[in-house]
Amino acid sequence: MTLGEFDLIDRIFKPLAAGHSAALGLVDDAAVLDPPAGCELVIAKDAMVESVHFLPDDPPDTIAGKLLRVNLSDLAAMGADPLGYLLVIARARRTDDAFLRSFAKGLARDQERFGLTLLGGDTVSTSGPLSLSLTIIGTVPKGTAIRRSGAMADDQIWVSGTLGDAAIGLRLLNGLAAPDEIGLPLIDRYRTPLPRLALGQALRGLATAAIDVSDGLLADLGHIAEASGLAGEIEAAALPLSAEGKSIPGARMSALTGGDDYELLFTVPSERAGELKDLAHEIDLPLTRIGRMSEGSGVTVRDEDGNPIKAGPSGWQHF
Amino acid sequence: MTLGEFDLIDRIFKPLAAGHSAALGLVDDAAVLDPPAGCELVIAKDAMVESVHFLPDDPPDTIAGKLLRVNLSDLAAMGADPLGYLLVIARARRTDDAFLRSFAKGLARDQERFGLTLLGGDTVSTSGPLSLSLTIIGTVPKGTAIRRSGAMADDQIWVSGTLGDAAIGLRLLNGLAAPDEIGLPLIDRYRTPLPRLALGQALRGLATAAIDVSDGLLADLGHIAEASGLAGEIEAAALPLSAEGKSIPGARMSALTGGDDYELLFTVPSERAGELKDLAHEIDLPLTRIGRMSEGSGVTVRDEDGNPIKAGPSGWQHF
Repeated sequence: MTLGEFDLIDRIFKPLAAGHSAALGLVDDAAVLDPPAGCELVIAKDAMVESVHFLPDDPPDTIAGKLLRVNLSDLAAMGADPLGYLLVIARARRTDDAFLRSFAKGLARDQERFGLTLLGGDTVSTSGPLSLSLTIIGTVPKGTAIRRSGAMADDQIWVSGTLGDAAIGLRLLNGLAAPDEIGLPLIDRYRTPLPRLALGQALRGLATAAIDVSDGLLADLGHIAEASGLAGEIEAAALPLSAEGKSIPGARMSALTGGDDYELLFTVPSERAGELKDLAHEIDLPLTRIGRMSEGSGVTVRDEDGNPIKAGPSGWQHF
Repeated sequence: MTLGEFDLIDRIFKPLAAGHSAALGLVDDAAVLDPPAGCELVIAKDAMVESVHFLPDDPPDTIAGKLLRVNLSDLAAMGADPLGYLLVIARARRTDDAFLRSFAKGLARDQERFGLTLLGGDTVSTSGPLSLSLTIIGTVPKGTAIRRSGAMADDQIWVSGTLGDAAIGLRLLNGLAAPDEIGLPLIDRYRTPLPRLALGQALRGLATAAIDVSDGLLADLGHIAEASGLAGEIEAAALPLSAEGKSIPGARMSALTGGDDYELLFTVPSERAGELKDLAHEIDLPLTRIGRMSEGSGVTVRDEDGNPIKAGPSGWQHF
């Protein structure tokens, strides 16, 4: 079955596939892709389920945007350029035509912004919550994809943007604190993350390892540490917090454990860290050194005196 | 998130990714794929939802097999060779470890049989029914993918194997008739279809259009006819029925409208139809001429005297 087989789906989704011949107009069973010479394809697949990854009341166009951006963030972490995507929609009973129209509008907007097109997919029905699955395809020059496993001991650990905002935004949406003017940008960060594509591409040949912060800084640095066979050490005082985030209690804890920020977390050899200042200026995105890789395993957070601390139920405590 | 991030998923699914370096051991955010020289990639995405596409009591290994085979059938229809796949599992509450182990065993068996490996994916939770989504990737020599849109007027219409069996099998499973020794092969055809990969690959450069019969012969021939801007004419008496299928009332109706057979339906120029006899012998799969393409639109079924007939509630009737 193809995404274009039913009339409504046809009208709504075919225009999204007009930009690339590989989609075969959504008429065929599959997309046919001829990768650019000298390039490898980078392919990732992520899913989102209503009430787990987005809220039933989230606007459909922002759900579409988040689905696309979460997958684009996987490409960013590998240093890839977006090319196209395939989409599966498992429609719930309440997923009506108006929802799909708004959803497609969100896709169209982000296709234009990030430069990719719909290549194919499937629609099915489910008695459960709306479920979305997206396969994203990008390209990298052969051999340049950034892996999680390439970090070396003494590499510096850097992160883009600010951390913890999306987790605070989700808390606001869940009514745990009253959203106000300060809260709106935080909610926006939860709903429509910004994939750091330009950064990821610039890090090819510079970063030794990279990952996007989706599970939370500690968990995601843990993935780099494990894949690289090393330990990661973070200085708590160095974590970049937004002005809005700082005003909410528990911001530093959110920065360490909150997911969904989709910033890039990466390691660079210390002798090349100087290049990051120019890069940050060039792509207009703050980059912050937050720690270093070392021999060993696991992830340690240190206070300003260098003593290890850990997150407890009532905040930070020393070991 | 990757498929390998949780311990159990890790242990169960990582072995399935061992066969191809592109999977990066499921450690990274994405798979990195270097297509063979001179080849294009063929990419399709299909989803299956419990109680819609499979039954809650179906054995987990056959559910896995069906998911993989349904997607392999999309590759077969395009004439592609399988390479790998990405998998999203939206776990329902009742999807326990035993289920996942059996499911992975089914994947492993069919990976070996059809020559492909797991490249990546995602696992999420859902409060609804178990939902599965699979992205399959294959290769074809550049420019040889078989499309739906290439049929020409006077091309002969051919189909592989026998039709209607899977739909009858589903009726048996639903208790509409008593399954017995005759019924078991039909149920098996519903649960574990056979993707016609060798046929699809042999049809490159021979068939002008192809599709796999997933929605039913009439619907799928309709897709070829529409994409090619032509009409399709079927001779009802020519439809290939299995010995088991023939013994069940309504077999011919099932052959026309029943889905899930995953046979290949394809068109060939009449002057090249002679090549199909040798091909059928070579791949040990019956191929049957069932009609021809003509100017016009839509799909017509004709009786032995050439008069158009249509399916009505009580069987076949003349216009």
